[in-house]
Amino acid sequence: MRRRSFLKQAAIGAGGAAVAAPVFAQDAPVLHWRLASGFPRQAEAIYAGGEDFAKYLHQATDGKFSLQVFPAVLNVLQAVGEASVECGHTASSYYYDIDPALCFDGAIPFGLNTRQMNAWMRQGDGLTLLRERFRRHGVINFPCGYTGAQMGGWFRREIKTIADFKGLKLRAGPFAGAVLARLGAQAQTIPGGGIRAALEAGSIDAAEWIGPYDDEKLGLHKAAPNYYFPGWWEGTLQASLYINLDAYEALPKTYQAAVAQASAAATQDMIARYDAENPAALRRLVRDGVQLKAFPVPVLQACQAETIELCNALAAQDPAFKQLQDSMTAFRDKTIPWLRLAEGSYDGFMSTRGSR
Amino acid sequence: MRRRSFLKQAAIGAGGAAVAAPVFAQDAPVLHWRLASGFPRQAEAIYAGGEDFAKYLHQATDGKFSLQVFPAVLNVLQAVGEASVECGHTASSYYYDIDPALCFDGAIPFGLNTRQMNAWMRQGDGLTLLRERFRRHGVINFPCGYTGAQMGGWFRREIKTIADFKGLKLRAGPFAGAVLARLGAQAQTIPGGGIRAALEAGSIDAAEWIGPYDDEKLGLHKAAPNYYFPGWWEGTLQASLYINLDAYEALPKTYQAAVAQASAAATQDMIARYDAENPAALRRLVRDGVQLKAFPVPVLQACQAETIELCNALAAQDPAFKQLQDSMTAFRDKTIPWLRLAEGSYDGFMSTRGSR
Repeated sequence: MRRRSFLKQAAIGAGGAAVAAPVFAQDAPVLHWRLASGFPRQAEAIYAGGEDFAKYLHQATDGKFSLQVFPAVLNVLQAVGEASVECGHTASSYYYDIDPALCFDGAIPFGLNTRQMNAWMRQGDGLTLLRERFRRHGVINFPCGYTGAQMGGWFRREIKTIADFKGLKLRAGPFAGAVLARLGAQAQTIPGGGIRAALEAGSIDAAEWIGPYDDEKLGLHKAAPNYYFPGWWEGTLQASLYINLDAYEALPKTYQAAVAQASAAATQDMIARYDAENPAALRRLVRDGVQLKAFPVPVLQACQAETIELCNALAAQDPAFKQLQDSMTAFRDKTIPWLRLAEGSYDGFMSTRGSR
Repeated sequence: MRRRSFLKQAAIGAGGAAVAAPVFAQDAPVLHWRLASGFPRQAEAIYAGGEDFAKYLHQATDGKFSLQVFPAVLNVLQAVGEASVECGHTASSYYYDIDPALCFDGAIPFGLNTRQMNAWMRQGDGLTLLRERFRRHGVINFPCGYTGAQMGGWFRREIKTIADFKGLKLRAGPFAGAVLARLGAQAQTIPGGGIRAALEAGSIDAAEWIGPYDDEKLGLHKAAPNYYFPGWWEGTLQASLYINLDAYEALPKTYQAAVAQASAAATQDMIARYDAENPAALRRLVRDGVQLKAFPVPVLQACQAETIELCNALAAQDPAFKQLQDSMTAFRDKTIPWLRLAEGSYDGFMSTRGSR
């Protein structure tokens, strides 16, 4: 079995402890792993999640467990599952074409916001169900960062009705792309670095990336003037740490605990960075003439209806997808009235008139 | 110096390493510390923050660094500062009467929500400024849990105008109590376990505690029918881990890192627990006849105006308070337009019509 053979090599190469059980004879072996990041360095805030994780793990293990981060790796799921690298940092929603159920680990259109996602993972069934699913890919997943609700992206022309999606060529994540294709759009995935050129060349009419801080770095506002909100396909994006399952299971329990806690700390850093940096970026973009535009409610409703139909079709083909969909939807709908009450009324007061 | 002498005793008692520098001769000494929780066991979700922290620290140090948690300790700040215990878990807003500036570490009326607080601490000046202030109390602080926006509490009679606060006897945290006193209320602090009896006996007319899950456990809905929102004094409550400063500085760097990461993991667990448990508790309360009532906007505005005047008076007496106030306010006001845009429009759609 390929993963097992990798594991032995890793043990020999890293800790020098080529034994069967326990794999590491020492309690605190010296390990040096490679981490494949699915994000380019340019996407600074989300890329930093992998670097932050590596920093925290290093600190908590007295420097014994270190990671080298490689940016912009295309198929992190496969690389980690096949043990080409020991671990990775990516967005599970990138792997829609390989296994749509994994998207529940990243973002589903009209899914959870950051608070709901954190709660579904840690107190609901989310993490348990997703780890069961990731096993078949030879991977164990840990939440490792949130972006918060994203923007809906950059459009050369306005979106007034769903008819405006017909024939629209746009760059989007694959799940949102599949929803928009049902409305007649021609969606494609383009790596971050190529989006601006594609917009400027006219080979696409619109593109979503992340939010003000990241989008500004790519210069997307220079290629399309209309900046839509909200990004209904990502109420938040949960970034994930992937570890090869055999490599993880061979770790001492203390290192396993350090992994979970280092990813928790990196998670808080990422959302903090977005919440600290996005506001200033938004102000700069507006100052530079960007037109903020809300998707009309009927457009959102139509997109949600298509999302539900697509999810139901995927659920009909795959009981695990259905189980994840049912769990996520129930958790979301259960939490909304509460979050709307105290959180929503507080935020509402503070945002409309309370701030002085 | 008292703290130094404690430190030597602790080192001898715990690790057996009574040396000067480094204090611990071993990289990974065996330590057994006491953690004083400011919360009663009954306040399960917030009390769990101390237990979760202890569990994570134990796991990350291979069981070498263990904590025993003592519930319902009254003055955790003093106990930790004077090294009666090595560490504690409490709400910094409890210490308004000792040092109002510390409240910025817990909650200030009309202050930050959970996302803003996390960002101000980790990416803004919050943690740096607060640690500077905590030094004078012999303590280093770590964020260790969020409650989310709280409820405004239980009122025997309705609040229609600010005149209804006049003469009102209520249980509230000390900062909110000081604001409400300016409006003629008679505020007092009563430990959680005594609130229901005081309401039933009529010695108070109203009481705020936390939110549906905790309030239900105290049975407050059986003593007063009107449940107000939002708790404008706690857009979130940040619970904090306190460590005696000398004890912390004597820790090996690896243990210091484990402390920070364990508290990050415990932080995410606490808000997850609230977000998972509050919705069902709210449903039960409403089913049992609780009347949900919003504080009228003019009431909120008047309370905010009093809060600002009180804060300005405190700032005039203490440059550190002013620095914290200015930093918090600027961070809050900078982040609101962004959070309102993507986050607010997404949540708004999902809560009013989006959920199916």
